[in-house]
Order: sequence, then C-alpha cells, then structure tokens
Amino acid sequence: MPSISKKGFSMPESPIRKLVPYAEKAKKNGAKVIHLNIGQPDIKTPQIALDAVKNNTLSVLEYSRTEGSEVYREKLASYYLKNEINVSAQDIIVTTGGSEALSFTMGSIADTDDEIIIPEPFYANYNGFATAMGIKVVPVVSQIENNFALPLIDEFEKLITPKTKGILICNPGNPTGYLYTREEIKKLSAIAKKHDLYLIADEVYREFTYDGKEHYSILQEQGMEDHAIIVDSVSKRYSMCGARIGCLVSKNKEIIKTALKFAQARLSPPTYAQIASEAALETPQSYFDDVKTEYVSRRDLLISELQQIDGIKIGHPHGAFYCIAELPIKDSDHFAQWLLEEFRVNGETVMVAPAAGFYASEGLGKNQIRIAYVLDKESLKRAVYILKEALKVYKDQ
Amino acid sequence: MPSISKKGFSMPESPIRKLVPYAEKAKKNGAKVIHLNIGQPDIKTPQIALDAVKNNTLSVLEYSRTEGSEVYREKLASYYLKNEINVSAQDIIVTTGGSEALSFTMGSIADTDDEIIIPEPFYANYNGFATAMGIKVVPVVSQIENNFALPLIDEFEKLITPKTKGILICNPGNPTGYLYTREEIKKLSAIAKKHDLYLIADEVYREFTYDGKEHYSILQEQGMEDHAIIVDSVSKRYSMCGARIGCLVSKNKEIIKTALKFAQARLSPPTYAQIASEAALETPQSYFDDVKTEYVSRRDLLISELQQIDGIKIGHPHGAFYCIAELPIKDSDHFAQWLLEEFRVNGETVMVAPAAGFYASEGLGKNQIRIAYVLDKESLKRAVYILKEALKVYKDQ
Ligand SMILES: Cc1ncc(COP(=O)(O)O)c(C=O)c1O
Ligand SMILES: Cc1ncc(COP(=O)(O)O)c(C=O)c1O
Repeated sequence: MPSISKKGFSMPESPIRKLVPYAEKAKKNGAKVIHLNIGQPDIKTPQIALDAVKNNTLSVLEYSRTEGSEVYREKLASYYLKNEINVSAQDIIVTTGGSEALSFTMGSIADTDDEIIIPEPFYANYNGFATAMGIKVVPVVSQIENNFALPLIDEFEKLITPKTKGILICNPGNPTGYLYTREEIKKLSAIAKKHDLYLIADEVYREFTYDGKEHYSILQEQGMEDHAIIVDSVSKRYSMCGARIGCLVSKNKEIIKTALKFAQARLSPPTYAQIASEAALETPQSYFDDVKTEYVSRRDLLISELQQIDGIKIGHPHGAFYCIAELPIKDSDHFAQWLLEEFRVNGETVMVAPAAGFYASEGLGKNQIRIAYVLDKESLKRAVYILKEALKVYKDQ
Repeated sequence: MPSISKKGFSMPESPIRKLVPYAEKAKKNGAKVIHLNIGQPDIKTPQIALDAVKNNTLSVLEYSRTEGSEVYREKLASYYLKNEINVSAQDIIVTTGGSEALSFTMGSIADTDDEIIIPEPFYANYNGFATAMGIKVVPVVSQIENNFALPLIDEFEKLITPKTKGILICNPGNPTGYLYTREEIKKLSAIAKKHDLYLIADEVYREFTYDGKEHYSILQEQGMEDHAIIVDSVSKRYSMCGARIGCLVSKNKEIIKTALKFAQARLSPPTYAQIASEAALETPQSYFDDVKTEYVSRRDLLISELQQIDGIKIGHPHGAFYCIAELPIKDSDHFAQWLLEEFRVNGETVMVAPAAGFYASEGLGKNQIRIAYVLDKESLKRAVYILKEALKVYKDQ
C-alpha cells in the first residue's frame, strides 16, 4: 500500500471534530446536546440574498471570472469605501470562502519552511492551511488575564527570523472575541514596516463589534499599501456560511498578481454564491442592528451566567461571537468528552470546544474552552447551568 | 516592500490567459472573435438542476458537512454503481470542483519535492496545483502520431524514482481527447502495483465517449483498491461549471481520512451547488444522448474541415471535447497572437490555445494548438476557414 504524505499525516484534525463521535453517541442514547462548540450562526440569511438566487435566470451555469464577477467586485469596493477602506475592484480577488483567501495569501508570501507569526489562541484552521502549504506557524502568546490583547511588541520581535514572512491576526478574534484597538494596529503596522513583513488581517468578523467600539482595519492605516492583506468573507456577516464566498484584498499589485495565479488554477469561485453575495450587499442596516443587538444580549447573558461559576476566568469579548473561558479543571479535552459521555441534567448535556486546539504551543489552553454564542438565550442559559452543575461533580483525573 | 514567495513567482499563468488582453483589444477594435480556446460548454444545464436551486427553501444558508451532504454522497455512490464503479458514500469526499479534488489528492500523497508522473500534453492546471503544493510534475511524452495513446510502460519505468508518489492520467483527456483502452488501464494499474504508487485518474469527462467506445475506470480494475484515486466533477457532465462541485473517490481509507483533514480546514463545499448537483443526478438519459450526438457531429465537422488544411496533423479524439492540431508553423504562441492582432476574414478572427502550455517539457508542442469544440457548428466551420486562410498568409518568424 502506497504511503500518505508526511504533510497529510501531520495535518491537524479540527479541534471540534474529535468530539463529534461522542456527541453522536450521546444523541443516539437519547440525550439532547446543546452545541456551544460551533461557529455556524442560527441567524436568518438576509431575504434579499436568498431571493436573488431563487429568482436567478441562468440557463447555462457558467464559470465566472477567476477573480470574481466584475460587478460584484465593483460593489464590494463600494462596501469597503463605506467602511473607510479605500480600495477598488482591481485590489480584490473573490475567493471560495475566507478559507481560500487564507490559502492564497500563505502560498503567495511564503515557501516551504518559511514562518508566519500568529498571536495564539487563533482560528485552528490557520494550522491546516499552513501545513498544506508547508509553512511553519510561529505562535506568540496572548493572555486571558488581559482579554487576549496584543502581546508586547518585544515578544513579536524576539520571534522574527530571516524566514519570517508575515504576521497574521484575526480582528475581531476567533476564538477570543478580542477587538484590536487603533493603537494596537498602529504598533503591528510599525513592526511590519520595520522588518519588511506582510501584515495579514482576517477581518471576517468586521461587522461584529460591540459596546460602541469601532473596527479599525489594517487598510485604514496609512502607508500599509505594500504590507497589508485583508482576508474577508460573507459567511458570518450575512449568516451565509454555505455560500462559500470570501475575498482577498490588497493594494500590493504583486500580491494580487500572484494570488490570481493560484486562483486561475482552480478556475472560479461559485456562481450562485456570487449572486447571493452581490445581493447581500444591499442588506438594510436594520438587519445588522438587529443582529448586533441579539449578539450583545446573548453575550451579556452568557458572561453574567458564566461569572457565577466558581473559579472561572473569562476573556471578555468586544467582537465576533466567541469567548474563551478558563475552568477549574486540568484537561478540557477530557472534561468535554466526559460531559458528552457521562453528564446529563434532565437528559441534556453540552458540547464545548476544548481550547488546546486553538494554541500552537504545546500545553497551553488545556484548562480553557471556547464557547460560541450562536444560539438562543434560553439554550445558552441552560448550557451554562449544565456546565456549572457538571463542574460540581467532575473529578479531574 | 516584502517579497512574494518563490512558489508564487514560479506559479504558471494559465496558457489561455496570456492571450486575453489581445482578444480584448481585437474586440475593442470591432473584430468578432470566435473562441476555440475555452472549455466552457455552451450546452444548457439540465433544467432539473436549475429548478432545484430556484425552488430551494433554505432560510439559513449553512455550511454543509465537510465531506459533502450525506444524501448527495449516497446518490453519487449509486451513480458510480450504475457505471460499474463499486463505491459507497464513505469512499467519496465532495469537493469544490474537480480542481479541489486534485489539490487534496496531491497534498495527501506527496510532500515538497516529491514527484508525480503525468503523460503530456496534460491539463495545464495540474502544474498549478503541483506548484502550490511544492510537488514536481515529471512528464512522459505521448505522441500526436498515435493520437496520444499511453506511452510505453518502459518510458514510465525509466522515470520512477524513490520520490515518485503517483501517476496521474486524464481519461478521456484534456487537451488530447484521447480515451484510454481497458488494456492501457490494466498496464498502468500493473505499474502502480509493482512500484507501490498511486494511480490517479481525472475522469471529469467520463460521460463524453464516442464511436461506441466505453469508458473504463481505474476503479473497475480489480485489486486497485489501495492505489486508485478518482477525481471527478459535475462541471462538464451537466454543463454546470459555475457550480464548483466535484469529488475525490477512493477505496483507500487512509487517503479518505487524510484528504478529509485538508477538507476540514476549508470547512465545506458550496451548499447551493450541492442542491443543483444532487438534482442533476436525475437528469434523463435523453439529455446525455442529445449532448453526445451534438458533440460527435461537431467533432466530425471540425476534423473533416481541419483535414483540408495543408500540412496539418490531428490527434483524432474519441472522448471529451478537445483536439490537438499540429500546424505547419514554428510557434503557435506567436501565431495565436498574430491572429488576434492582425488577421481578419470579414471582420472576424479566431482565438486558439497554443499547446506549449499543456506540455511540461520545454520546447514541445510549439507547433500545436488545442481546439475546444464547445460552440455551434456554424461558428466552428467559419473558425476553421479563418485558420486555413490565415495559414496561407502567415509568415513564420
Ligand atoms: C477567523 C475565521 N477566519 C476564517 C474563517 C473561514 O470562513 P469561510 O471560509 O466560511 O469564509 C472562519 C470561519 O469560521 C473564521 O472563524
Ligand atoms: C481535465 C480537467 N480536470 C479538471 C478540471 C477542473 O474542473 P472543475 O474544477 O470545474 O471541476 C478541468 C476543467 O476544465 C479539466 O479539463
């Protein structure tokens, strides 16, 4: 039997995925499972986007342009302008989800064994894309004690080597919910310029900022034209994860030219999904206002309930829809599995995402979990109650 | 300014793409351009697939399962069974186009600097995926003189090194239109087994076989369970290239497990497109009969018209919808550009794909072009007439 690649062997499994068989077994045995583990919002997709697809009049479902349809890219540029990000259609490549924009970015800037610095905990699939491309992720630790704010600039500079090609941040952050301040973006931009690195910002949660705080994009920062690469997506913004549309945005023409070659190989992004995404740009502001109000009230409920758990530490999120909680346990992998296998309150249990999978440093995050607040408040409340009761009886091994 | 990656630098541009600016200029100057260069069929997508999307009742456009929806994979397995390919849903990962299946396959079997042997001329984007993954394409030459049949087994064996991980064929072939015989598949299977290699077959044109010849899949061959990986796609089969749905099929559980990790990183294939693809499986046989009849009559017309050109050699295709023609010229890149820039018959010109881009060996294919017969017979006839007249006045440099 021929062997699989080393790359394929070391490719990480999704940290959420490992527990799926336990969840399925629990359900088969009659338990209800409340999912705190997934980032799939329950929010309705804007009707205008759904209708555009239902009303399409295509008779031949053709490839679109490799870089995405011209009209859609023009409209996207206007969207960015409204968000004080000064780009035009030529600075945008439409991709198959933010995921593909991440792949294209990594492939365009780094070769085998090159390094990208990423504050941890981070979106676990960064590891997957880096592994697929043969690139090394170099983590810099951020701390729950200060809500996972930007690590000290010194900490970054210590890690920069001749192999370092870029710094990747997620803003606002998955799994932390942390929203970088303008000052933090300025500091990062300064290191990128000083060491001639790319600064990549995964801004797929741009719209989800709370408490009157505003998102500050790396492309709002002057002088970052050659260094900044934005990764974006319609998945969360319009609750249309299944569309698989994102984009890569950069004023650096070499980057666009190079990423376009990666894009050409895979021909085009999905056509129906572009129809939906183009229409979604017309979503009324009231939709976002409602969604934000909903997320804020879920977050507030979640945090205040969690705070009643003895010995818990919480990273207070100002964006996205995740938060990290540190529990008075040793191993959240074990705890999460035990919840699914052994613990029930009125026939119900909870599935959480163990946080170790969001860290690249061995041993970090082992007593943390990630909670996604993408479900209704009633369920959230019951879920935290179950966690609280569980911790009372859980025996750390 | 930070540099781009070596990989990104050496990433090939699509061989068709280079000429696009000349075609655009010709059109701006009032010329009509007949496109013989693209593989986007003009055939109508089955109504049943279009309707399924128009009638969808989704209110939240969610991620699908990473490996594709369960129902769709079950139905796909039945489709394969009908085609004498004995697989089940667990042997299938739904991908974003055949393109993504090619990426996942390469990533799962080969590491940086590993080698994959491919008969040339081949689908140019194999180069792109290999480059993105850091893998080396090792070409083995097939000849227009015998319609691009399988090169001698000796030729393959000469190229096998400890770094060789697999052999990739396209059956029927783009750009050759060549349909491998059962005996050829048996020979290839024997080498794969003897040298413990993967045999990957890109079968996206499976349905397009003519002259009473039948497609023989590598998974119809006994004993290939551990070695065979099929790449497939709905793009051409149902003329729905814009869907972006394909799949990877293998009985090798390690391959499926590994490819699934690559798939997890990108979350899921597009949801609308899976709705269309599932419905497309119900397309009546009469649709395929009509399409085949149409392609055969186009091919017959094309070949008989081409044969009237002095000094031409043609690879006679029995499948897909491409053919390679060798012209009495030195450099088809130059010829193709000259056609767009200088040559008109009644205000019309032709865009062809220079074939050198389909070869990995430097210098091969320079007097060849690829013609896709995905347009109506009237246009095909005029296009060949224009080529013929052009060759009368074209001055080889
Ligand atoms: C931080 C972050 N980036 C990128 C993605 C990729 O999303 P998509 O490919 O659906 O755009 C996700 C999805 O959860 C995410 O959380
Ligand atoms: C031989 C071959 N393989 C794979 C593909 C990829 O097609 P898709 O990604 O649309 O399935 C094509 C497209 O032209 C092709 O010709």
